[in-house]
Amino acid sequence: MIIILKQDANESAVRALRAELEAMGLSIHESLGEQEHILGLVGDTKAVAESWVLANPAVDQVRRISEPYKKANRKFHPQDTVVQIGGTKIGGGHFAVIAGPCSVESEEQICLVANEVKASGASLLRGGAFKPRTSPYSFQGMRAEGLELLRHARAKTGMPIVTEIMNTEHIPLFEDVDLIQVGARNMQNFELLKAVGRMGKPVLLKRGLSATLEEFVMSAEYIMAEGCEQVILCERGIRTFENSMRNTLDISAVPMLKHMSHLPVVIDPSHAAGINWMVEPLAKAAVAAGADGLMIEVHNDPARAKCDGAQSLTCPQFDALMQDISREAVFFGKEMN
Amino acid sequence: MIIILKQDANESAVRALRAELEAMGLSIHESLGEQEHILGLVGDTKAVAESWVLANPAVDQVRRISEPYKKANRKFHPQDTVVQIGGTKIGGGHFAVIAGPCSVESEEQICLVANEVKASGASLLRGGAFKPRTSPYSFQGMRAEGLELLRHARAKTGMPIVTEIMNTEHIPLFEDVDLIQVGARNMQNFELLKAVGRMGKPVLLKRGLSATLEEFVMSAEYIMAEGCEQVILCERGIRTFENSMRNTLDISAVPMLKHMSHLPVVIDPSHAAGINWMVEPLAKAAVAAGADGLMIEVHNDPARAKCDGAQSLTCPQFDALMQDISREAVFFGKEMN
Amino acid sequence: MIIILKQDANESAVRALRAELEAMGLSIHESLGEQEHILGLVGDTKAVAESWVLANPAVDQVRRISEPYKKANRKFHPQDTVVQIGGTKIGGGHFAVIAGPCSVESEEQICLVANEVKASGASLLRGGAFKPRTSPYSFQGMRAEGLELLRHARAKTGMPIVTEIMNTEHIPLFEDVDLIQVGARNMQNFELLKAVGRMGKPVLLKRGLSATLEEFVMSAEYIMAEGCEQVILCERGIRTFENSMRNTLDISAVPMLKHMSHLPVVIDPSHAAGINWMVEPLAKAAVAAGADGLMIEVHNDPARAKCDGAQSLTCPQFDALMQDISREAVFFGKEMN
Amino acid sequence: MIIILKQDANESAVRALRAELEAMGLSIHESLGEQEHILGLVGDTKAVAESWVLANPAVDQVRRISEPYKKANRKFHPQDTVVQIGGTKIGGGHFAVIAGPCSVESEEQICLVANEVKASGASLLRGGAFKPRTSPYSFQGMRAEGLELLRHARAKTGMPIVTEIMNTEHIPLFEDVDLIQVGARNMQNFELLKAVGRMGKPVLLKRGLSATLEEFVMSAEYIMAEGCEQVILCERGIRTFENSMRNTLDISAVPMLKHMSHLPVVIDPSHAAGINWMVEPLAKAAVAAGADGLMIEVHNDPARAKCDGAQSLTCPQFDALMQDISREAVFFGKEMN
Repeated sequence: MIIILKQDANESAVRALRAELEAMGLSIHESLGEQEHILGLVGDTKAVAESWVLANPAVDQVRRISEPYKKANRKFHPQDTVVQIGGTKIGGGHFAVIAGPCSVESEEQICLVANEVKASGASLLRGGAFKPRTSPYSFQGMRAEGLELLRHARAKTGMPIVTEIMNTEHIPLFEDVDLIQVGARNMQNFELLKAVGRMGKPVLLKRGLSATLEEFVMSAEYIMAEGCEQVILCERGIRTFENSMRNTLDISAVPMLKHMSHLPVVIDPSHAAGINWMVEPLAKAAVAAGADGLMIEVHNDPARAKCDGAQSLTCPQFDALMQDISREAVFFGKEMN
Repeated sequence: MIIILKQDANESAVRALRAELEAMGLSIHESLGEQEHILGLVGDTKAVAESWVLANPAVDQVRRISEPYKKANRKFHPQDTVVQIGGTKIGGGHFAVIAGPCSVESEEQICLVANEVKASGASLLRGGAFKPRTSPYSFQGMRAEGLELLRHARAKTGMPIVTEIMNTEHIPLFEDVDLIQVGARNMQNFELLKAVGRMGKPVLLKRGLSATLEEFVMSAEYIMAEGCEQVILCERGIRTFENSMRNTLDISAVPMLKHMSHLPVVIDPSHAAGINWMVEPLAKAAVAAGADGLMIEVHNDPARAKCDGAQSLTCPQFDALMQDISREAVFFGKEMN
Repeated sequence: MIIILKQDANESAVRALRAELEAMGLSIHESLGEQEHILGLVGDTKAVAESWVLANPAVDQVRRISEPYKKANRKFHPQDTVVQIGGTKIGGGHFAVIAGPCSVESEEQICLVANEVKASGASLLRGGAFKPRTSPYSFQGMRAEGLELLRHARAKTGMPIVTEIMNTEHIPLFEDVDLIQVGARNMQNFELLKAVGRMGKPVLLKRGLSATLEEFVMSAEYIMAEGCEQVILCERGIRTFENSMRNTLDISAVPMLKHMSHLPVVIDPSHAAGINWMVEPLAKAAVAAGADGLMIEVHNDPARAKCDGAQSLTCPQFDALMQDISREAVFFGKEMN
Repeated sequence: MIIILKQDANESAVRALRAELEAMGLSIHESLGEQEHILGLVGDTKAVAESWVLANPAVDQVRRISEPYKKANRKFHPQDTVVQIGGTKIGGGHFAVIAGPCSVESEEQICLVANEVKASGASLLRGGAFKPRTSPYSFQGMRAEGLELLRHARAKTGMPIVTEIMNTEHIPLFEDVDLIQVGARNMQNFELLKAVGRMGKPVLLKRGLSATLEEFVMSAEYIMAEGCEQVILCERGIRTFENSMRNTLDISAVPMLKHMSHLPVVIDPSHAAGINWMVEPLAKAAVAAGADGLMIEVHNDPARAKCDGAQSLTCPQFDALMQDISREAVFFGKEMN
């Protein structure tokens, strides 16, 4: 961390600041030029809040040099993390596809879609039971009953299930879920992150709509700080000024997250665009950019879907896409689950 | 709601769509031009999800005409809502200032600041007990103990207290809080919104960092749909590309929210900029733009604050600001609490 | 175009508005519901400005249904445009790579790089002579002399040259350039667009940092409206909140621009990230998403480049990338130039 | 400037970098910690491009400490600049209002509006002759003829005129304009900035839609570097995710620009919102935040305006606003022109 002092900083204030920093176990390199007076902090600055330093009247600017995340940081853990859910591996060269409907709507629907996506090569079944909706008047999901139906589909197909948790009070309902999803709108619901981190299960964390990558990794750090090491990062489109589609896929997040962290990175092209015909090119771009997996919405009858039908693939569309994706993953040297 | 059909829409698909919409109690006006084929829906379209319509293969575009919020909508409730907390009124010409430290740090600190801000003219005492922090290694607040100290400061000064709730499981701890705050990062924590809406208390809802005003009002609608009518909207800066300050105050939110809704609008200039010397001009702009109140961070010793010291005013700075603000509120025809 | 009238719109104002619209040759479908009063305009609304309609006191909202661009619109020109520069084809299944240094720095440098990129398989040589720089104190390019050196490199290698024009007064200097580039910062320099459109040469138009895709295509429309049909659209990263890289590549722009328009789409992964090690994954993603070409910065000695060295590939790095890209383009069914 | 070296930086590369920096006249303070290796540069780093440093393989990060602008920097010019146009002063406690139609449409129109706004207290007359429009099919302004009509209105009323220049080739037409406006879309048209800076006239520079404040001031620096010291900075709304209005007024720009620079700051509330009823609250907020002036669109018949009628005030609306603004400016200690 580097502290740039004000040109007219009071000498005794600077001395006091130095003393406080040294009391925190940090050593200090001072550079005093004509125009600039700088303190370089050496040591573990993870717990030194920038806002605390900035509040000192002698301080003009603060710049953090080392990353504020540790457990998620590739520097301290150079090997790729491989997340394992049942027999499926994600990361470290293993590529997996998560597929299923936006929301669980009935036993028939979830079982039918589960069978189809499994036959096409998906490894994990997704399906929303608790649905975060902008409007209180929109369908809020089948909730506990939806979880029950997911378990039923798992029993029938053998596919591990992935579904979103929205509240710490629902944790008992999720004990039997294979991969716990934390949604984009809850990326900074810190109480939820902590509780999920203590569940002892793999977690798929979605990036917030306007979160920076550092904020995203810091949210993974919240989960990991509770002892969970099996975290998958999922980029699902960010908010931009573009209005011809719902969100804008940040494909650069794939190489940059892999540079910052050892955790696997998965792309959700369905939410990224919100338009079914864009899923194919975006999914292909994700594989080429080095993603470790895809999360794709598939519905047996999108025009009757209770939620996000416009972005859902039909089962035959998904099947065609899986053929392309499998060939492409091999072309890029990945091992398909 | 207006539905624009594809130029090559299949006739039977259109007929089926019309039938489904009519079954929902809507009547339909059809315009068929050379280049455009349009269905205009007449009736209550609140529950018709755009994504459902868009998923229909005959549909090209959907445009909502009427607002998706009802209880918060000024069209159906033209009178300003006045929120009352103890003896303090906010809205409908009544102007109030909420002040206090970012976080409760000790009995001494909260009581000292409470006494000072009361003497300067603040009506409500703020102070964070549960703190949402980007890093798991930052100070997370004094939690239950912090709430206890706030109650203590209330007992000493008579000021009603405002503090942030982060999780539905903490509700029992907040039963005695006068104004429940929902923070920016939880603006779309829908389970929390619903639970807070059932507490029977006034709520101060902060706008998410990248939320549109419609999304913001929809989150208020979540609270109101549970029976709570005492909601205050708080603009606290949005995320933009500007990096010389923390956030960018959206002053236009004041007149636009008041146009959309009857709820009172309060500005938080402290979080908006994150810099103490910017609080004064932004607070003054807020009054001039028609805000119903201000929420300002004040600390007895900002350089030692555990959180956000850089944006905190000292007690004498707050006192000077209050003198200006009181005169300005009167100039603009408001009644100070 | 759809006009939503105010609920309390004055009848005579509505009649007057209808008369004006009909005088413009449009016919009108009216829907009058309990909550909504709508006029649907049928006919050519290209010249009806939304702001003009909105200024009418009877009008609440205006929504455009048909696109405001015509010449660039795929609806009216379903076949892909193939842009031809010398023997190089871009679009309609033809894939080309433009490569070279950010700026021309000397005869040696540009000739050396030109030879190398040609040997690696690039079809067109890029090099900035006029450089748009944020600071007036930064290197502004070799200007006319830089153009001279580019021509020299073309004579030596036979590669057509691509370079940026910043001002209409420089047009005489660009008469001999093969592909005229309009930079991101000039995407809405409308006088320049018009003048470039009259040059009778192919144009590569870069997307503005915060431009929507519709605005981008409208700028291409400016060029095409002057008679130029050979326009290439180049996505080069948009501004987002992310600060770990310079810009964020909008990979979705590839399929969406091809949906909106028949013009070829090229990706510039060098400017998109501003970091050399990100060029490879982004270039690969571009090919997979369906781009028609790439524009890549290559420098013989990036650490001594006068401009944007951090994003430049060395010649051997570019050579390795070209081997991968060529194989990938074939995998995705493109014909390499 | 601070350079953070890579942990595994090659020693000889570091030595070479140091030598190059020293050859530029800079002295270097080195801090070598366990986790961090930092070079602090002391001296004039204005001409050291960050991208050049970053391109060095030994370098991990670069942080600029001192501002890259000099002539516009308040640190080197603590007194407020007062811009004088005819008898009107802007800045240093002097407050002025610029008013007039979005575009000049006819002799009658511009003279009528000029007379009215003068009577209401405006000091300068605005009116667009060259209009930057997103669509090539929209009204492009009366161009040279519009300038002629503006001069005519000036002759009739005595008001100095302000109008936008879009191209360096039009400079001869603008020799007689009192205040040259550079529009938002041309904020980084660097060739235009340089040419305008050499005209020997005061310049009103509008902020680009997504420009940071530093980029904005750097564009003023381009003008000043050519010898022009009379530059007014105009904030006119930035692009955000909000879609209920056209742009979002960045009111924080007022105090922050005044902190960064000595140049006067003017607010354009008309373009900021694009909605006439929002002009009043935003104009009032601008005065309260400390702006030095306002730029407001006024039209005799907004519903028939050729451009931006929806945001124009009628003459009586402007007159009412001027009464409020004049009182408010006095309340805040400004001297009205």
